[in-house]
Amino acid sequence: MSELPVLADSVRLADDGVYILDRRVFPDRREWVRCEGVEEVARAIEDMVTQSSGPYFAALWAMVLAAREAIDLDGPDAQAYLERAGERLIATRPTNNHLRKAVHAVLSTVEGTGAALVESAWRGAVAGDERYRSRSRALGRHTAALLPDRATVLTHCWADLYLVGLVTGAREAGKELSFYCTETRPYLQGARLTAETLAELGIDTTVITDSMGAALLADGAVDALVTAADRVTMDGHVVNKIGTLGLAVAAHAFEVPFHAMVQAPDRLAPTATDVPIEYRSGSEVLAAAGVAHPAIRGHYPAFDITPPRFVTTVVTDRGAYGPDDLADYYLEDR
Amino acid sequence: MSELPVLADSVRLADDGVYILDRRVFPDRREWVRCEGVEEVARAIEDMVTQSSGPYFAALWAMVLAAREAIDLDGPDAQAYLERAGERLIATRPTNNHLRKAVHAVLSTVEGTGAALVESAWRGAVAGDERYRSRSRALGRHTAALLPDRATVLTHCWADLYLVGLVTGAREAGKELSFYCTETRPYLQGARLTAETLAELGIDTTVITDSMGAALLADGAVDALVTAADRVTMDGHVVNKIGTLGLAVAAHAFEVPFHAMVQAPDRLAPTATDVPIEYRSGSEVLAAAGVAHPAIRGHYPAFDITPPRFVTTVVTDRGAYGPDDLADYYLEDR
Repeated sequence: MSELPVLADSVRLADDGVYILDRRVFPDRREWVRCEGVEEVARAIEDMVTQSSGPYFAALWAMVLAAREAIDLDGPDAQAYLERAGERLIATRPTNNHLRKAVHAVLSTVEGTGAALVESAWRGAVAGDERYRSRSRALGRHTAALLPDRATVLTHCWADLYLVGLVTGAREAGKELSFYCTETRPYLQGARLTAETLAELGIDTTVITDSMGAALLADGAVDALVTAADRVTMDGHVVNKIGTLGLAVAAHAFEVPFHAMVQAPDRLAPTATDVPIEYRSGSEVLAAAGVAHPAIRGHYPAFDITPPRFVTTVVTDRGAYGPDDLADYYLEDR
Repeated sequence: MSELPVLADSVRLADDGVYILDRRVFPDRREWVRCEGVEEVARAIEDMVTQSSGPYFAALWAMVLAAREAIDLDGPDAQAYLERAGERLIATRPTNNHLRKAVHAVLSTVEGTGAALVESAWRGAVAGDERYRSRSRALGRHTAALLPDRATVLTHCWADLYLVGLVTGAREAGKELSFYCTETRPYLQGARLTAETLAELGIDTTVITDSMGAALLADGAVDALVTAADRVTMDGHVVNKIGTLGLAVAAHAFEVPFHAMVQAPDRLAPTATDVPIEYRSGSEVLAAAGVAHPAIRGHYPAFDITPPRFVTTVVTDRGAYGPDDLADYYLEDR
């Protein structure tokens, strides 16, 4: 695999703003949304122009826009401006930790004023970009090591660069994988982003509706359930796209391993109650299903929480851990 | 509830054929498909113009059309013609037993030739229609008896007259119910048929995507999972719309009862291997999700099989049974 898939390079900094590939219409249309400033990037994230790893990159480059916006401010004012910009970006979506990390990557490197401020923000963003990609490749290799050759993998939603890392890692290890992807309602990230990217990468890919996973798991058609995690708590709860829980429970019932991919467990989240779950508007579910009757409501928790008893492995950039052994991840830091 | 909901009277016999309300576009549009003969009814069933209980009624009235088509034949030829018509109708969809029962309801009453043949077929169809409705009301009452007042019910796909029977039965018992309905991809029967009918009946109704059920069950938001069953085997396997299995496994994991509604367990199906599972074209899944990439496949098992260990109760027209006690259903016949 020499070329990156389209979605692995879908947020770009330019002189006139940040360009974000619109994942709401990909692959039907390849439209880039130009965001001139931090506020426009924040709204694009809220409006789901990009999701999964996308907001991490969008926030990195938005912080460079913030430095540009602060180019005429003195030191303390510029710092305060960047911090406010970071808070705005972090507030766009509450469940995932990527935004916090992206903002921190830039805030921890900015210094000076004027052009030096912008230059230092840019260096922080580039380093954050490279770190994220390299950690995703590492966790992809560790995940591939858990799978047999010719494994059939069931995945849900869109694991973004972790998925690309898994495919790359499997190829490095000489393993051929095939995938079942859930379509992932209401925004169809599985059908539009995962299936399309796997097909771009030349991987055998089959799309199912979200309700078909349990039957595949019961039939022995799947060797492993593999998803990304938006967050993993220190006691092994996996927070990910709504629907992960149901697949994990079915995998457990039919003795199929569930591997959750995350760069690192979240030291700020000892357990599930420490992770705020985003509830989006139920009207998004109704609109996707074409429901018009005024008395019918919709309900849209964007994420669910899989308890550790349904999780086989949490795969990180440092290797694979049991859900009860996540404290070991940080032993290296001591 | 004095009036029937629209979908409870959606197959009608007329002088010029059988009219079937097109469930593929309901409730957006209320279009009736006119079927002049048996073959057209068979194709309408295959094309999903109607489903769930709909094919039962369509097959009943199609057998009257068959009698009309055989009006000039002598006795043995007319009988053979009706039998062939029945075989054609039964072959349209393999998993549900309704078609077989509808055909049998008419074949067991037809006699004579000419106008007498048509008249006897019509009497058989009317009796079959009335029997189906009365059994659905009975099983609805038995299901309502299992639910507490103010119960929140999670349902999947479209339980048709069983659902109407459940709502009616709960009202007779002075119980108020509210429902979560899965949208039920790819054809959205839950969002279009179940939610619309419950709203017509004045029931509190919320639509979720197919992947949200497990999170609701884990959160304690649901008192019971209640679905129809296309078939229940004598050893307690519940065959129903794809997705039922995943919800049943999650209900079991989070200790929520699962009640499966069926008029009767199937004496012709001792166990799950006796029930053919219909695989529809994967292209239907791809089309619904808008997948265009030529390398991506779709997969569409229309039903799944829930083993008895995940089933709390099978509710029939004769009352509620544990999945291991279904032989008792037929004790009354002895």
